[in-house]
Amino acid sequence: MAREADAVVVTGGLGPTADDLTREAAARLLGRPLVRHLPTEARLRALWRRRGRPLPEGNLRQALFPRGAAVLPNPVGTAPGFAVKVGRVPLFCLPGPPGEMVPMLRRRVLPALRALRPGLPRVREAKITCCGVPESVVAERLGDLMDRDRPVAVGTTASGGVVTVRIHGSGAAAQGVAGTHREAVRRLGGDAFDPAGRSPAEALVALLARKGLTVATAESCTGGLVGGRITEAPGASAVFRGGVVAYENRVKESVLGVPRALLRKHGAVSAATAESMARGARRFLRADLAVAVTGIAGPGGGTRAKPVGLVWIAVADRRGAVSVSRRFPGDRPFVRALAVATALDLLRRRVQGTR
Amino acid sequence: MAREADAVVVTGGLGPTADDLTREAAARLLGRPLVRHLPTEARLRALWRRRGRPLPEGNLRQALFPRGAAVLPNPVGTAPGFAVKVGRVPLFCLPGPPGEMVPMLRRRVLPALRALRPGLPRVREAKITCCGVPESVVAERLGDLMDRDRPVAVGTTASGGVVTVRIHGSGAAAQGVAGTHREAVRRLGGDAFDPAGRSPAEALVALLARKGLTVATAESCTGGLVGGRITEAPGASAVFRGGVVAYENRVKESVLGVPRALLRKHGAVSAATAESMARGARRFLRADLAVAVTGIAGPGGGTRAKPVGLVWIAVADRRGAVSVSRRFPGDRPFVRALAVATALDLLRRRVQGTR
Repeated sequence: MAREADAVVVTGGLGPTADDLTREAAARLLGRPLVRHLPTEARLRALWRRRGRPLPEGNLRQALFPRGAAVLPNPVGTAPGFAVKVGRVPLFCLPGPPGEMVPMLRRRVLPALRALRPGLPRVREAKITCCGVPESVVAERLGDLMDRDRPVAVGTTASGGVVTVRIHGSGAAAQGVAGTHREAVRRLGGDAFDPAGRSPAEALVALLARKGLTVATAESCTGGLVGGRITEAPGASAVFRGGVVAYENRVKESVLGVPRALLRKHGAVSAATAESMARGARRFLRADLAVAVTGIAGPGGGTRAKPVGLVWIAVADRRGAVSVSRRFPGDRPFVRALAVATALDLLRRRVQGTR
Repeated sequence: MAREADAVVVTGGLGPTADDLTREAAARLLGRPLVRHLPTEARLRALWRRRGRPLPEGNLRQALFPRGAAVLPNPVGTAPGFAVKVGRVPLFCLPGPPGEMVPMLRRRVLPALRALRPGLPRVREAKITCCGVPESVVAERLGDLMDRDRPVAVGTTASGGVVTVRIHGSGAAAQGVAGTHREAVRRLGGDAFDPAGRSPAEALVALLARKGLTVATAESCTGGLVGGRITEAPGASAVFRGGVVAYENRVKESVLGVPRALLRKHGAVSAATAESMARGARRFLRADLAVAVTGIAGPGGGTRAKPVGLVWIAVADRRGAVSVSRRFPGDRPFVRALAVATALDLLRRRVQGTR
């Protein structure tokens, strides 16, 4: 690649195991030996001391670099990256895990690449987050904004019930990004979870904090994932009181106060039970709002009347309780991910006063 | 690719949006029109009717296939795949999401590929799951089994605190896989979470079910993710009672019965609090065992004595409570993932009687 490109970025292969060979490959390419980097060795020893485990000797391989390489510090993980020149071409070797790779790419690689080509066209980007709405519905709302011959590119990606709208323009089109973003937000209306493109958890925690509201969860089929998702956001402790995972019906009764008669009459997967769970969690955890999820994630447990994928979601606040049902497609992990996304969305709509 | 290979497998680009172009590309390659597949249209309409939303017209594109293509049903998602021949070379077009792609690959593509080359060497594989143990520790235990010149290949992959050991042999080496697997299990000793290579959740639920034990969770910094992980396993309802997400200290006190004096003296992130949370959850949810997690996931909240990444994990059962602390590296999501993995591991060791 160094023969054909102006710069090469390699990710992965910097770990401690025998199949991590990026260091060796780079050294062979350069015709230079690997040499020990003492500050990295010291850092590795300190890390393992803090973990209370002896450092496996093999891990010291992570402190070897081709002679003359610039070591790129890794504040997040154990493997530093490194930069060398292959002839006149810069080669950046970064760790594989995205959580370690991305910060290093941003801090060390992108500025170097920009410096290589100072005249590159300006790029502007914007994002909008949708959550609990199918990707095709988002695409239909966006309509001709997604046409591929427009100068500002609008695309969608979907993962686990979260749809991200990406708006991108480079060169002359960069200045059109803001207008396209405004128009996309307008067309999405109430389906835009966050016009600023933050993660649903971050946007929800910020919204609740701004309104001075606290929230609690009551979960059955999601087993804790709604609470897990809300607390992805740093600072969630300002708004999240806690939750009850009521997997057993007995816990729904004894902790959340769902009446046994109601459970018998409507079943655990019903509007009445979801709303009662939300009311119970709100009371029990003394929160302003509570969200409840109960459903059949599969693969077993479905019936003709209540098939696998059926999920009821409710939100309770001082005004009362609202609920929605969905029949999600897909396997158990997919049904649960969509249930989490829809729970966050109902919560957001309720706080914004549109439900 | 069809010019050089004996078969081609394409994934992705079968979705409903305008940038999903695999159908069009295949039709152009074959010089055939796209035609409507009526059973798929009917299935799409029924799916959306059940979701209670109108079918976006654009989604009918998912029912278009190059004339003469064999439609590969998708029981999991909306996009069927298809198979055609480019000259004599079979071309398989599969959906991108792994949850939809993998079942279709297994059921329809792999058998067809095997039929293409009946004399292909036999392949045997085995897996071992480790959980809450660093990958480099696993690699050190495995030692020379990972040497790359051995006929049976042994490798490790790590994701979110779960390390999977993969043992692979083809042709003459296939018969050596069982022996290498036995030796790897022996060397890993108590660090092998599941010698059968199932996910930690599946293995743990099976272990608890076999012993007739129930479990509950008490979570602070993981916000519900331990419960979420345990309930990944179908059939978790046989062993999982439920959990308390005690994000606020007030919830630790009022629900889990952690004494206020104890919280004041030791702090929320301490052995005493973790053990008290586990005891409280066990009592409150009437389970045989409970696991508790309390820690500082970051990025804020760390101090010199209790830095970001410090997590205490405890398990309580009728014999009492045990706890371990770890100082995890990495960012907030990474610390939480490692905390979940370590919680499952401590639970497993306690049930197996090694803690």
